[in-house]
Formats: sequence, structure tokens, C-alpha cells
Amino acid sequence: MSFIPQDPDFAVRVRNSFSRQSVMQTMEVELVSVEAGRVVLAMPFNSQWTQQHGFLHAGVVSTVMDSACGYAAFSLMPAEAAVLSIEFKTNLLRPAQGERFEFVGQVKKAGKTITIVDGEAYAFSGNQKKLIATMTGTMMTVLDKGLSG
Amino acid sequence: MSFIPQDPDFAVRVRNSFSRQSVMQTMEVELVSVEAGRVVLAMPFNSQWTQQHGFLHAGVVSTVMDSACGYAAFSLMPAEAAVLSIEFKTNLLRPAQGERFEFVGQVKKAGKTITIVDGEAYAFSGNQKKLIATMTGTMMTVLDKGLSG
Amino acid sequence: MSFIPQDPDFAVRVRNSFSRQSVMQTMEVELVSVEAGRVVLAMPFNSQWTQQHGFLHAGVVSTVMDSACGYAAFSLMPAEAAVLSIEFKTNLLRPAQGERFEFVGQVKKAGKTITIVDGEAYAFSGNQKKLIATMTGTMMTVLDKGLSG
Amino acid sequence: MSFIPQDPDFAVRVRNSFSRQSVMQTMEVELVSVEAGRVVLAMPFNSQWTQQHGFLHAGVVSTVMDSACGYAAFSLMPAEAAVLSIEFKTNLLRPAQGERFEFVGQVKKAGKTITIVDGEAYAFSGNQKKLIATMTGTMMTVLDKGLSG
Repeated sequence: MSFIPQDPDFAVRVRNSFSRQSVMQTMEVELVSVEAGRVVLAMPFNSQWTQQHGFLHAGVVSTVMDSACGYAAFSLMPAEAAVLSIEFKTNLLRPAQGERFEFVGQVKKAGKTITIVDGEAYAFSGNQKKLIATMTGTMMTVLDKGLSG
Repeated sequence: MSFIPQDPDFAVRVRNSFSRQSVMQTMEVELVSVEAGRVVLAMPFNSQWTQQHGFLHAGVVSTVMDSACGYAAFSLMPAEAAVLSIEFKTNLLRPAQGERFEFVGQVKKAGKTITIVDGEAYAFSGNQKKLIATMTGTMMTVLDKGLSG
Repeated sequence: MSFIPQDPDFAVRVRNSFSRQSVMQTMEVELVSVEAGRVVLAMPFNSQWTQQHGFLHAGVVSTVMDSACGYAAFSLMPAEAAVLSIEFKTNLLRPAQGERFEFVGQVKKAGKTITIVDGEAYAFSGNQKKLIATMTGTMMTVLDKGLSG
Repeated sequence: MSFIPQDPDFAVRVRNSFSRQSVMQTMEVELVSVEAGRVVLAMPFNSQWTQQHGFLHAGVVSTVMDSACGYAAFSLMPAEAAVLSIEFKTNLLRPAQGERFEFVGQVKKAGKTITIVDGEAYAFSGNQKKLIATMTGTMMTVLDKGLSG
């Protein structure tokens, strides 16, 4: 899928907004890449974020997938827009075990108000890469609400 | 709705498992109450968990709702079972702004293998209480997999 | 929950639009009641709509729940708006078996552009009423697109 | 993605079960192809299935996507299993307008009890093919419940 961004400076805009998401810094999430309609984030394993079996908590996986999805949508929005998640659904496919995790947000359909984004989360363990979770998120373009980014 | 628990010691079992979820401690989440099929959690606002507009990140809201939903389901499972989230869907209704947040997980239908749970998240600000998000989650009873809690 | 409709003639508007949904007539769905933010539909069992085990197909249950949810949202929209479903999620709780089915759409949060609606489907069998499925749907207020109803 | 079926006669099993879904016949749905983990269905436009704007109703689109997803999952199940939809989520991307529609169910992860399937719905109009909706569905392998297919 290939999209033409409305704002040629979309990558700067995504990076600025990402740097204002405190939770991304708290969780040591790194912005790996920004393309028009596609964003990749990564984070190391840290036992601070685990559930009762020692796996990454499903909600933490969702947090980073939601940011990846939100910024994938945001990359295609006009320069003055803010992005809000309306809803998302996460499917947990395998235990979130690994040394490092990667999260891909890929726009499926960009509309004027509503953008649909697919998310995928991968666990890296040694030289293995496994799909551990998927997301479908509905993102909204917000204009004139006093919000930016 | 009222459910008869299979394990009379369900509340102890929920508290033990909850205390093993590192992410709950990291996020300063407190277990408010445990009933058969219903669990309430609470957390204070902390700017560590915010997105770019200073609201609690939707994924953080989902993290605590998922734990509330998971433990609501777990309270009705047999003593030797573990609980896993198969999938959940979060709807974000209002900005997650407030001094304190409460998260309710309420079982809608408990089955042998699959339990459906509804979640609600509330923000408290001064003397106002607002519903900010809802969840529907599908939880699985896991037996004989070497997992507990 | 109680809502104040923007259009006092909302019930007429809902009934008119409902009568234009051919699929509702095809499936012999009847509009039981319309309140501001709440719509109830009903249909008889008919083996035309069954899946391989003789139960009502989950998609048919979703069809009528989606209409109930859409019209619950539509009842709170301005007179000139059209309603579109952006997304919905259905949970199937019990086999859709019975002589008659009822479907309730209840608005959870009505916004200017986005309205969140909860749906419930019940099966009636003899003097038993069972909850068989739930839905959460995201509905959009559409203005100035050449669509009505 | 490629899957090894547990039952070499999976295609026969899928066709038999599909032929028992009355709603598929009622909606004139045709089984286009069955592979291990992937099923394609098609249906013509018919005004019997429309909503108030003359588009195919979102629930009807979901009905056929759910069958495609369910049979994709079923193709990988043991010979004696039955398949049940636990839940699904539909995103509506574009109006369901066209002369003919195609529905693809593709397994994303097959487990012993739970299988996750992605669905896509396409509208064909003249020589145009458009993605109109997507689904993620959670399917369950049912054994020893007196259900087949």
C-alpha cells in the first residue's frame, strides 16, 4: 500500500508528537521508522511491564501498538491536525516473551475524518522473530479543538 | 448479575496473582475490591503514563481495564486454572483526564473455556466521576499448561 | 441513561429510515420501540437464516443488532444527518436458538461526529429469555454527503 | 502464510458444512475456493440485502465474511471438530456498492482451541475492485459437544 501524504513534513511532525508521549519514554520505546502511512516502534523487554506469568502485559503491547497505529494515521493527516484513538481491538496470538519487541502500524484506509490502521507486534528472542499480537484501530483526525499533534 | 464461584477462595487467588503482575505495581494500581465475577482497580494520575496531549494514554487505560477484566474472569475459574486474554476491544469515550482513575471488570458470561467480560474506566476530577472508556474482553481458562494464576 | 434528542421528531425519522432498509423487511424484522438513544427490534426464527448447526447465523444476529445500534445513534442526531456504521464487534455468548429474537441498541456516549452504542440480542424460547450476543458499535454522523437517513 | 491441514480431506469437509448453512443459499453465496487456512466466497448484489442508502447492509457483509473466516479456520481443524465463532469485529471502509462481492477468510494463527482469522470484503463494479470491509474473528474448535461441521 502506498499513500501520498498531505503534509510533506509528516515525519518531523510524527517525531515531535512522539517525543511528547511521556509513556513512550517511560517504556523506553524508540521510533524506528516513519513512512507515509507506516510507523515502526521498538522496545526492550523490562520486567517492570510484565503480567503474572512474566510475559509483557497485553495492555503494554497494546499501548505501543496503539502509538504505532496512531502515528501511522497521523503521518497522513494535514499539518494542523491532532490524532485521537476512537477504538482499537487487540488479539493476543502468542505469549509476549522475548528480549526485544517491534510494533508496526500500517494504514489500511485513510479518510478525511476516520482512518483505519492495522497493527502488528513481534517478539525477538535470539534469532527468532514471532508475531505475538495484532490490532485494528480506528483513528480520528481532530481539527479546531485546541489540540495539536 | 450474580455468579457462584467454583473456588470459595477465589479472592485470595485473585490477590495473589494480582501481586505478581509487576506492571500493576509499576503503575501504582491498587486492588479495590474482588467479588465473584467483578473486580475493581484504581490508580492515581501520573504524568509518566501520558500521551501527547497530557491525557492518560489509551493503552495504559486498556492495561488496567484488561487486568480488571482478566481477574473478574479468573475469580470464577477453578482453583488450578490460569487466565489468559485472547482479545479485547477498547472504546475511548472521553479524554482520560483526572486525578484518579477507577477500572471495573464485570463478567457477562462465564463458560468452561471462554469467559466474556465488560470493562469500564472512570476518571475522577474534584467531585466529578466520568466514564472515559469501555472494554469487551474474551478471557480463556488455561489448564495443564504449566501456568498458574 | 437518558438523552435529550436534537430533533423532536426523531422517532418518525427512525421509522422512515428503517422502512427503507430492505434487508429488515427481507428478514421480517419489526421495529418494536424507539426512544431517544434506544431502539428495540424483533424477528421470528426462520430456517432461511441459519448456519450449519441450525442456529441463527452470527452474521444475521449482527445484522439486526447493527440496525438497532445504528438507529439508537440516529435518534440523537440532527434532523438532516445520515448515519453510517464505522465498525462493530460482536460477541457470541450462546447458540442463537429460539422462536423469536429481540435486539436492543442503547447509546453509551453520543458525540458530534462519533456515537458509541451497545447492542444486546436475546433469544425467546417458550417462556425463557436468554442473552445470546452483545455488540459494541461506533456510529458516525454524516452531514453534507448527499445521504439521508 | 502456509498451513499443514490436520485432515487431508478438509476441502470436502468445508464444502459439506457450507452446503448446510441455509443462509449462504438464501443469500446466493458461492464457495469460490478452499485452501488450507484460506476460503473465498462470492455473492451477487441483490437489493434484498440493502440498508437505507441502497448499499449492502454492513451485517450482510459481516455474515459472509464470518462464514469465510469460520471455514478458513475449520479447514485446519481435526476431522471430528465443529467450528464456532466466539467473536468478530468488522470495519467498514467504503460503501458496499457493486455488482458482485468477494469475501476472503485467511487464518492468521491456528491454535488447538482458538484460531484467529482475518477477513476482507471486496466490491466489484465494472472492472474495478475495491476493499470495502475487514474483519478479525476468533474461532473455536469444538469437540465432543454433539456438533459437527
